[in-house]
Amino acid sequence: MSWAITRQDLTDLAYGAALLGSGGGGDPYIGRLMAERALDRGRTVKVWDLDEVPDDGLVISTAMMGAPTVMVEKIPSGTEGVGALRALEEHLGRRAIATIPMECGGLNSTLPLVVAAEAGIPVLDADGMGRAFPELQMETFHVFGVPGSPMAIANEHGDVAMVMARDNRAMEWLARGICVRMGGAAMIAEYSMPGAVAKRVSIPGTLRLGIALGAAVREARRLHRDPLEDLAGALAAASYHGPRLLFEGKVEDVFRQTTEGFVKGHARIRGYGPGDTMRIAFQNEHLIAEIDGKPLAVVPDLICILATDTAEPITTESLRYGQRVKVVSISPPEIMRTPEALDVFGPAAFGLDVTYEPSCVG
Amino acid sequence: MSWAITRQDLTDLAYGAALLGSGGGGDPYIGRLMAERALDRGRTVKVWDLDEVPDDGLVISTAMMGAPTVMVEKIPSGTEGVGALRALEEHLGRRAIATIPMECGGLNSTLPLVVAAEAGIPVLDADGMGRAFPELQMETFHVFGVPGSPMAIANEHGDVAMVMARDNRAMEWLARGICVRMGGAAMIAEYSMPGAVAKRVSIPGTLRLGIALGAAVREARRLHRDPLEDLAGALAAASYHGPRLLFEGKVEDVFRQTTEGFVKGHARIRGYGPGDTMRIAFQNEHLIAEIDGKPLAVVPDLICILATDTAEPITTESLRYGQRVKVVSISPPEIMRTPEALDVFGPAAFGLDVTYEPSCVG
Repeated sequence: MSWAITRQDLTDLAYGAALLGSGGGGDPYIGRLMAERALDRGRTVKVWDLDEVPDDGLVISTAMMGAPTVMVEKIPSGTEGVGALRALEEHLGRRAIATIPMECGGLNSTLPLVVAAEAGIPVLDADGMGRAFPELQMETFHVFGVPGSPMAIANEHGDVAMVMARDNRAMEWLARGICVRMGGAAMIAEYSMPGAVAKRVSIPGTLRLGIALGAAVREARRLHRDPLEDLAGALAAASYHGPRLLFEGKVEDVFRQTTEGFVKGHARIRGYGPGDTMRIAFQNEHLIAEIDGKPLAVVPDLICILATDTAEPITTESLRYGQRVKVVSISPPEIMRTPEALDVFGPAAFGLDVTYEPSCVG
Repeated sequence: MSWAITRQDLTDLAYGAALLGSGGGGDPYIGRLMAERALDRGRTVKVWDLDEVPDDGLVISTAMMGAPTVMVEKIPSGTEGVGALRALEEHLGRRAIATIPMECGGLNSTLPLVVAAEAGIPVLDADGMGRAFPELQMETFHVFGVPGSPMAIANEHGDVAMVMARDNRAMEWLARGICVRMGGAAMIAEYSMPGAVAKRVSIPGTLRLGIALGAAVREARRLHRDPLEDLAGALAAASYHGPRLLFEGKVEDVFRQTTEGFVKGHARIRGYGPGDTMRIAFQNEHLIAEIDGKPLAVVPDLICILATDTAEPITTESLRYGQRVKVVSISPPEIMRTPEALDVFGPAAFGLDVTYEPSCVG
């Protein structure tokens, strides 16, 4: 059933998006402010359930791509999202009936709401990653064979490029080069598809999930309960498993490099007792959490670093020495754990020589 | 008067293009082979004088962009030139009536002939640089305010990107990033304009000039004359001045780096007598020739390094230790020496703190 986003939804979503961002996707705070501004200006953000979209209507995915470290300083002007959408529509000679988030984590949970509000179309309660991933082919859309091209990429100066690539990996490669030249972050519109296809290849309910996670934590805080328990209920309702507490400690060291349109690096977290240290590697998002070389969780499982006192998720670009944190993992829905899906965004896709085992299932 | 390119024209043009390439533009040998292959396959390369193009006909500039060092190993498949042209035509919703070379030097003298043959349209006897330059805004088209966007860039895999940039410098910046991701060399179609505009903003007769230069050297060799004298006549007929012999010596050292979609570096040439050494800096093309820090010639003057025994031009990617060479300069037509033109491709445009003085005029 279609509904309209409220201010409370945006606040809750900012939390849920940061959690589902798994350390990446960019700080949802900026996206929340942009969506709030759209509401301030009298716009409505209408949400359609996935099954509401007409089968023959054109759905276009919108998002920001680039390094979250860049997005902290190079804030979207607000026009480039619609700019990318319009450029792709013009190329296709057809208007989109709705936009679908590329990912449901970080900044990219709320930016499609802004695009929807500005373009006057609904946003679908679904996405193509079920979390955040760093690369454009790491999508369930891609797993199910939807071509990402033609795609549009736009910046705050009004520059637009269209990429028509032979496959989705080549699209990522070329678009990343453009993104870097646009300053390391840019808005994109991609994976245009009929509603009937979107229903088949998307992860449903992830916008509601993000809001529900935020609402659960808000309620837990009000009642002085441990938020982790409340998160479990919201996750289970959307076929996610967890969260599981992997580790507690203090951030001891962070190595972080903004390179090739990504932020790449790793963090070391020292436990409070003697002995164990957890190492977490990331490429925009956290990829693997290990102790003494033994992985406790690995992609596509979500690895989230939460501030111990507030349970606020800490993104890779905000991670710093001295933070007291809990590291939790979440296992995604079955659709994201098939062999076909693991080929696209499992450990090997990131060059990790590790076999994926869901950390919160069974 | 329109005419058709012959095999002899191609051989002569390969020489003239190498000379006008001013060390850059890529080795014309490959372009000559591609054009010969088109003739072998029964295609015709029809040439129009600039004044023959209908005022309202669409003219599109075609070229290869990238580092000449890359083009030596990554040879065009032959389809990407027409691929770029067709992508731009599709975007514009209009077919080109003719193509115009972006530059009249190196590989880019002959590649538009291949595009013309394959697309079944004429090529104009004119260009936008009057020589070769490394960047896309270094065009008389740009000097006279023609937007280079939308532009298409295509590779040998069938990947195509369209760039719609806010200005021609941003176009160069974004397209260069794509070019690098395409492996450092790619085919482009850009500066679409009506015939009436092309007549106003182009340098006429540079295809004939390239052929005439080659024919002059061929004739000089046949008669065992010094080719430099014969070149002077052909250049003067097209309002170029020179050549002037700047230096003779042996290549002593070459520093060459393929970086950011260009080949950049410098060469040192030691004179045969005691004392003087010439230093030549290049970015794809030779930029400045100096002795003891005193410039003898600087862009937009053409600086050409010729093999002493054959008068064959040596491109920056072929320059190596031990070559015996003559360094000559040529001053381009007046249209390329105006203050507006010097802003775009004079010394300051390359970061050189030197005042331009034509080395062969007055």
